[in-house]
Amino acid sequence: MREAYILALDLGNTWFRAALASFNQKILSLKKIAVQQTWNLQETLDHLYKLIETVISDSKISEKNLMWAGISFGGLVDYLGRTAILSHNFPVWQEIPLCQLIEERFGCKALMDNDANLGALAEYTYGQRKGLRNFIYITVSTGIGGGLILNGKLYRGSKGLAGEIGHTVVLRDGPLCTCGRRGCLESLASGTSLAKRAQEEIQNGNKEGQLVLQLAGGKIEAITAKILYQAAKLGDRFSLKFFEEAGRYLGFAIAQTILLLDLEGVILGGGVISAGNIFFIHIQETLKKQLTFGPQRFVKVSKSRLGDRIGILGAIALIKGIQNL
Amino acid sequence: MREAYILALDLGNTWFRAALASFNQKILSLKKIAVQQTWNLQETLDHLYKLIETVISDSKISEKNLMWAGISFGGLVDYLGRTAILSHNFPVWQEIPLCQLIEERFGCKALMDNDANLGALAEYTYGQRKGLRNFIYITVSTGIGGGLILNGKLYRGSKGLAGEIGHTVVLRDGPLCTCGRRGCLESLASGTSLAKRAQEEIQNGNKEGQLVLQLAGGKIEAITAKILYQAAKLGDRFSLKFFEEAGRYLGFAIAQTILLLDLEGVILGGGVISAGNIFFIHIQETLKKQLTFGPQRFVKVSKSRLGDRIGILGAIALIKGIQNL
Repeated sequence: MREAYILALDLGNTWFRAALASFNQKILSLKKIAVQQTWNLQETLDHLYKLIETVISDSKISEKNLMWAGISFGGLVDYLGRTAILSHNFPVWQEIPLCQLIEERFGCKALMDNDANLGALAEYTYGQRKGLRNFIYITVSTGIGGGLILNGKLYRGSKGLAGEIGHTVVLRDGPLCTCGRRGCLESLASGTSLAKRAQEEIQNGNKEGQLVLQLAGGKIEAITAKILYQAAKLGDRFSLKFFEEAGRYLGFAIAQTILLLDLEGVILGGGVISAGNIFFIHIQETLKKQLTFGPQRFVKVSKSRLGDRIGILGAIALIKGIQNL
Repeated sequence: MREAYILALDLGNTWFRAALASFNQKILSLKKIAVQQTWNLQETLDHLYKLIETVISDSKISEKNLMWAGISFGGLVDYLGRTAILSHNFPVWQEIPLCQLIEERFGCKALMDNDANLGALAEYTYGQRKGLRNFIYITVSTGIGGGLILNGKLYRGSKGLAGEIGHTVVLRDGPLCTCGRRGCLESLASGTSLAKRAQEEIQNGNKEGQLVLQLAGGKIEAITAKILYQAAKLGDRFSLKFFEEAGRYLGFAIAQTILLLDLEGVILGGGVISAGNIFFIHIQETLKKQLTFGPQRFVKVSKSRLGDRIGILGAIALIKGIQNL
């Protein structure tokens, strides 16, 4: 039997990552490139192919031993159709049959899923709490995504859209969301929404935002969640308020999900979570208030420790899971 | 091989039903008795045992061919511990190891689950839309229960408490629920809560409740969801308002669940639903407003057509499912 290897791809809105791994989960090579929003589709694919060729050659394996590619995609995925439907922040992806393209170019079989589903699978397979049978993985960064592990398996739902906790409504008639509804969790607790709400308040004359504005070089439109976090760490009340509110909304949505699905755990990842505890304590406090009795009181909310390799690990886990079937 | 039969029990708060069925799902005998809230535990069990003995003798099978008992219980169940934990409306059930009692008395093996979970299983196995792979069954009567079929299997969660949509919060800081939280769906859309809210409004001097009060024989405390429904059918605006509100809350909770779990169907059962369309149209309208795009637009909400046999059918399905494993 010849040796078999997995190509793992993590296609986000900021970075493309590629890795070559053996089936016993050893990563032989890993490389990332920064994505340019100005690339057209052909440029995007060219950069991606070159990245893949580099990790293959770095790994020193023969390309004919590349059996599978697993793809973690930062956007909407048609899992069965093996197609990247769209990404709000990276417009070249529109109904692109990525699996087929990779298969034809590299002579392997390919599978793809969205980054939140594969984040959940990565946690289930490699995380601190691996093997947890019923949990939700939630990633809070520019948007809010979620993936569900139920009965020890990734639960995709009927069209592959399950787990999208970011688009459950936590405030009736709340702010307009990118999805077209109002008051979705994503419109109140994502990094983008935090920045947007701070910008609006300063625009509307709130004078408490001075420190934030200063950190943004005086430009309202340059205020980001990162800048808010810097100010919050300095004790700035204006900034702290946004993290507190967002934490409460997230805690509320998590409590509802724990109750409906009788989960035994919650794992949080993504840039806004990894930023620090300012956000996390408000999530915890809200959960404590909402879950006052029954076994749900004891559900532990953890931070992911897989770092920025989570997409790559999820892509590997996807392939390993298929092979085990 | 000797013939094998299933005893199916449906233990509600108003009726106990028992049936004897063959494994090819033919019901040989079925009988029900009205439950008296005044019975103590021994009286309750004596009545239950007598009911079971009657259906066995009516069916003309030999008791030694009774292989399995399936129990649908209208309250909190410890599925793995095979115990009836409690029922809000029938206080004698408190940590009663019902499966063990039935096994010892009738020499068969027994399994039990709550009525909402088994309602979902009955729909999956025998309903109009049998075989639907991802759906929630919701029963709206005195309380609101729910059961989830995910990937074609009953999903119980980590402690058997999954699917309890009645205790998801649909109105922050809303009315106090039996569970201790505020604004749960059950506190705003169950039959009990409809009656309670109508009673409170009339108590507080709302003069529009005249017809309802009249139908209740002039006694505020005698107003029930059934009376509200009678008045609503006559076009009484006071009554219609409660069904409209309740339908909206239920529609909202259903929309959230469809989105989070990417369901392909919803099946509604229970007394308040079977009452008529007054309630149902407001559920449908809210869903239409909440689910405006994506495949979720096409999710169909149906009424259960299994009638009051659903508990018995669920208990049979539970045993047949185990046998298929």
